[in-house]
Amino acid sequence: MTLRPALQELVAATHSPFHEDGSLAPEVVPLQAAFLAANGIRTVFITGSTGESHSLSCAEKLSLYQAWVPAAKASGLRVIAHVGGNCLEDAKVLARAAGTHGFAAISALSPSYYKPASLAALIDCCAAIAAEAPGTPFFYYDIPALTGVSFPMERFLLDAPARIPTLAGIKFTNPDLVSYRRTLDVAGDRFDIPWGVDEMLLAALATGARGGVGSTYNWAPGLYHALIAAFEGGNLEEARRLQDISIAMIDAMASIGFLGAAKALMLRLGVPVGPVRLPFGNPDARQVDALIRRLDELGFQEWGAKAG
Amino acid sequence: MTLRPALQELVAATHSPFHEDGSLAPEVVPLQAAFLAANGIRTVFITGSTGESHSLSCAEKLSLYQAWVPAAKASGLRVIAHVGGNCLEDAKVLARAAGTHGFAAISALSPSYYKPASLAALIDCCAAIAAEAPGTPFFYYDIPALTGVSFPMERFLLDAPARIPTLAGIKFTNPDLVSYRRTLDVAGDRFDIPWGVDEMLLAALATGARGGVGSTYNWAPGLYHALIAAFEGGNLEEARRLQDISIAMIDAMASIGFLGAAKALMLRLGVPVGPVRLPFGNPDARQVDALIRRLDELGFQEWGAKAG
Amino acid sequence: MTLRPALQELVAATHSPFHEDGSLAPEVVPLQAAFLAANGIRTVFITGSTGESHSLSCAEKLSLYQAWVPAAKASGLRVIAHVGGNCLEDAKVLARAAGTHGFAAISALSPSYYKPASLAALIDCCAAIAAEAPGTPFFYYDIPALTGVSFPMERFLLDAPARIPTLAGIKFTNPDLVSYRRTLDVAGDRFDIPWGVDEMLLAALATGARGGVGSTYNWAPGLYHALIAAFEGGNLEEARRLQDISIAMIDAMASIGFLGAAKALMLRLGVPVGPVRLPFGNPDARQVDALIRRLDELGFQEWGAKAG
Amino acid sequence: MTLRPALQELVAATHSPFHEDGSLAPEVVPLQAAFLAANGIRTVFITGSTGESHSLSCAEKLSLYQAWVPAAKASGLRVIAHVGGNCLEDAKVLARAAGTHGFAAISALSPSYYKPASLAALIDCCAAIAAEAPGTPFFYYDIPALTGVSFPMERFLLDAPARIPTLAGIKFTNPDLVSYRRTLDVAGDRFDIPWGVDEMLLAALATGARGGVGSTYNWAPGLYHALIAAFEGGNLEEARRLQDISIAMIDAMASIGFLGAAKALMLRLGVPVGPVRLPFGNPDARQVDALIRRLDELGFQEWGAKAG
Repeated sequence: MTLRPALQELVAATHSPFHEDGSLAPEVVPLQAAFLAANGIRTVFITGSTGESHSLSCAEKLSLYQAWVPAAKASGLRVIAHVGGNCLEDAKVLARAAGTHGFAAISALSPSYYKPASLAALIDCCAAIAAEAPGTPFFYYDIPALTGVSFPMERFLLDAPARIPTLAGIKFTNPDLVSYRRTLDVAGDRFDIPWGVDEMLLAALATGARGGVGSTYNWAPGLYHALIAAFEGGNLEEARRLQDISIAMIDAMASIGFLGAAKALMLRLGVPVGPVRLPFGNPDARQVDALIRRLDELGFQEWGAKAG
Repeated sequence: MTLRPALQELVAATHSPFHEDGSLAPEVVPLQAAFLAANGIRTVFITGSTGESHSLSCAEKLSLYQAWVPAAKASGLRVIAHVGGNCLEDAKVLARAAGTHGFAAISALSPSYYKPASLAALIDCCAAIAAEAPGTPFFYYDIPALTGVSFPMERFLLDAPARIPTLAGIKFTNPDLVSYRRTLDVAGDRFDIPWGVDEMLLAALATGARGGVGSTYNWAPGLYHALIAAFEGGNLEEARRLQDISIAMIDAMASIGFLGAAKALMLRLGVPVGPVRLPFGNPDARQVDALIRRLDELGFQEWGAKAG
Repeated sequence: MTLRPALQELVAATHSPFHEDGSLAPEVVPLQAAFLAANGIRTVFITGSTGESHSLSCAEKLSLYQAWVPAAKASGLRVIAHVGGNCLEDAKVLARAAGTHGFAAISALSPSYYKPASLAALIDCCAAIAAEAPGTPFFYYDIPALTGVSFPMERFLLDAPARIPTLAGIKFTNPDLVSYRRTLDVAGDRFDIPWGVDEMLLAALATGARGGVGSTYNWAPGLYHALIAAFEGGNLEEARRLQDISIAMIDAMASIGFLGAAKALMLRLGVPVGPVRLPFGNPDARQVDALIRRLDELGFQEWGAKAG
Repeated sequence: MTLRPALQELVAATHSPFHEDGSLAPEVVPLQAAFLAANGIRTVFITGSTGESHSLSCAEKLSLYQAWVPAAKASGLRVIAHVGGNCLEDAKVLARAAGTHGFAAISALSPSYYKPASLAALIDCCAAIAAEAPGTPFFYYDIPALTGVSFPMERFLLDAPARIPTLAGIKFTNPDLVSYRRTLDVAGDRFDIPWGVDEMLLAALATGARGGVGSTYNWAPGLYHALIAAFEGGNLEEARRLQDISIAMIDAMASIGFLGAAKALMLRLGVPVGPVRLPFGNPDARQVDALIRRLDELGFQEWGAKAG
């Protein structure tokens, strides 16, 4: 398929930058893009869960799309735009814009306040969105822990192509590796099924993952690139050591509010993506200092992103 | 408190009208308002869960607000505008508009894709919204089955007033009557805690409910007014018989998709509120016919709303 | 039906007495029976959830049955023996013994470690047990919060009689009052559906309950008898006040471990039912003192059981 | 530690044999043991979840222990006896018997009807059991999907040794590989953490598993031995192919009731372990025939156990 973007790499799910007062700061995007590119990222997944998708207005998402067009071009990044949410009317607007911008792909998760009653209803939702960008590959974004919507993804891959000609794969943010194995089997070489649980990347690689989309690839791509290299070189002990670091890093961040910690860390790395919006909370300076010390203990200098 | 709207009655949570193609049909609102008023409703709760809140764009909600201003005036209805959702920026815009329109109250549920990690974070969200309509009473809308957000509401009533001077009460859409009893105790005469589970109204009345907000009051207010009268007159057998009808009615509707059935029923009653949007599905004509027959068996002619 | 024991009263779900070292203390049963009878209880439900059923060996349950035979006779109590658990072989042994002892009824909950895959499988389990006591009425004990097994009880009442000729009703320990209403409708006058959530008794009475089985009737039957009298006399304010006391009492007990608190309270009332077994914990003396003070504040002298 | 049994292999969680009428058939154990040994199994885990633990009476478990002593000796198998359940009094009796029989280890899951309120309470339960077999290694059996009890196992490993001197590790039947990684880190070389989710063995091996305990090792040990060999030889494609077969096999069995299907399959392999007990159901002959055909399609002749 000419459409398929071959998502067989680590894709950074980017933060949405805000000013200190919480208003959108699209002017940060070029710096953010340059930072990611400098640290080895080649593709970004914007306005997704890491990007506080559901806390952004539709107009704000459109602004970010606009900001990413030149920034991505300047830094050589491919853009996948997440367009999903509860309101399909908004999702359709976003899909159209993404198609117009010529992004590499779009992606959408399921409505979650009202939940599709069947897989067919979910596919109807996806089809309605994908149809607005008929020349742009579509990835379904499966994240049952946040949406509460759970259908067998191997079945999705069988049923959806007839309704979604642009279907390119699934962003699989579901720790169930049995389901992942089933899905990979159906996918074969026809679809990409990038993995979305960074702290389980090693297990996913063994299971057959060929790429991933995640938030920690923003500030620690080197850690995971090293993990992949160790895995591919047959050095499992080293791969496990690196996965342990990933888990310890995430645990440290989660203990003070994961997304707030992540944005504070990005600021320390020179990318002022600002605070998180409600309902999330932001760590105070003392908490961020303690986090930085903990990351240094874990070897951040060695495997973390280099400040911009 | 001068602010308090005294929600001690049955409030209809209204549908959002659409054309057959799914686009917004605000021109239906005057008819809808007249229908409800003619059937004994005095207050409406608009763009809530029944109104497919999360499937509406922010601009569409603003259009509906606009449409309700003259319609409510013409039919003598009070309007409570639901403004909540995942994006607080949108909620603030909606709260400002509702305040400007002079609605009787605003209400907001919790963000649900990203969930507040604590009651304090939830109150922060509500306070940010309520502050945009400083002259308008605010009702928190607790609906844990749909949001997945569950905090003790008696605690909310104790902690929130310091942050939300306009707090007027809670729309309590939670079947937990122990929690309801605790909340009513804290509320006393200071706050209204309208009940939101129509099929359990009788139990809630015994527990202390003095009003309710619900979808079935759109097409069956007479059923519940009779139930309340029977309860207040000490005729529990009759109150139970009427509650049984309510349950059977809801079961029949739920079996073909509750909200789609409800909107189809409204059309049969002369109020063309149109189809439901995805992810919900609409019943076909045969299913609607069967539903009408079932409602007739249950005595709809006796207790149902009169066609407009 | 001659079989039916007419469970239209408050039934105490009794504790299983232990010595301080945790071994069974069946010699306490006569005192326990006399205490309950003196406080207005006429029927007991033994070796149920309150009786730490799942922490008792089969032989211990048989010992308790034995102890209750003369104790019940001496104090004029009727005995319902709970025989359920995970091992149906044990349940059958217990049912046979209960039948031999001539108890008023037996009751069984569902296996919960392995769960019946269908309502039919659950009925198979119940039928196998009930068949061992062919002259003894059988109550299914529905307690989904503890078993994780949830089927529609109105359906149970329709399907089970063909398999369980001795079916007399359901002990309904499920706060879902919509389901309760449906079940009462099917039950009519043929089955008793005693209510099992003490802290919601008022709402259940309005919904149609004619009796209840619970733990708090061991030490506070007067509270609930007064509540029922107020309800029947149309004094809902008083009934709510008494329900509030019930809720506050249970909250106070739950804050230090409900069942351990309950057994400590029974000891203070002169009935040495001993400690709870693991996995539960026992409150320390300071915690029990604080509990007693709290209960006194709530008016225990007025509505609590009189010490034996 | 001299105690440690070094569980770094595939351990079969054995079925409990019954006669056609559901009564215990301990006389089948020698045949069962010989069959497993002939198929490359060296250690068995008896009366666990596969062995319908919770459907067995305490006396029946003791009978099985007795039967396994000579059978294990004759076939050269090591025995780990599962002793856990809801009733700790029974668990203690079983632990004592297992210790007397000189079994290689005992294991216990958590009480699940009543759940420990804290990790400390869970450790208290385990300590009480383990103390009855002071010379026998103890494995905690973590299976949150069935018990509903979920504590961080890395914390268990830190806190429990002070209370359980015989602690040898954890049977980890929890698909959460992040938690598994954390637990393996704490375990180091001091504890064995055999993996309990057969359909995810490959991912667990990559994550660091050095052994497993499971039901499918009864009839398909060759499949998994080949999987392990492929994994260790760096042939991930082959390992995934074999894991796919495992998943397809389990899916086929689960579609007709997993455990009933398993026992029917064992019978076809010449080991008459009989039917499953309620609440499980047994497949009919037609279903078993279809299962056998499906397994043959999947290559059972190649990787399945050889009939006894």
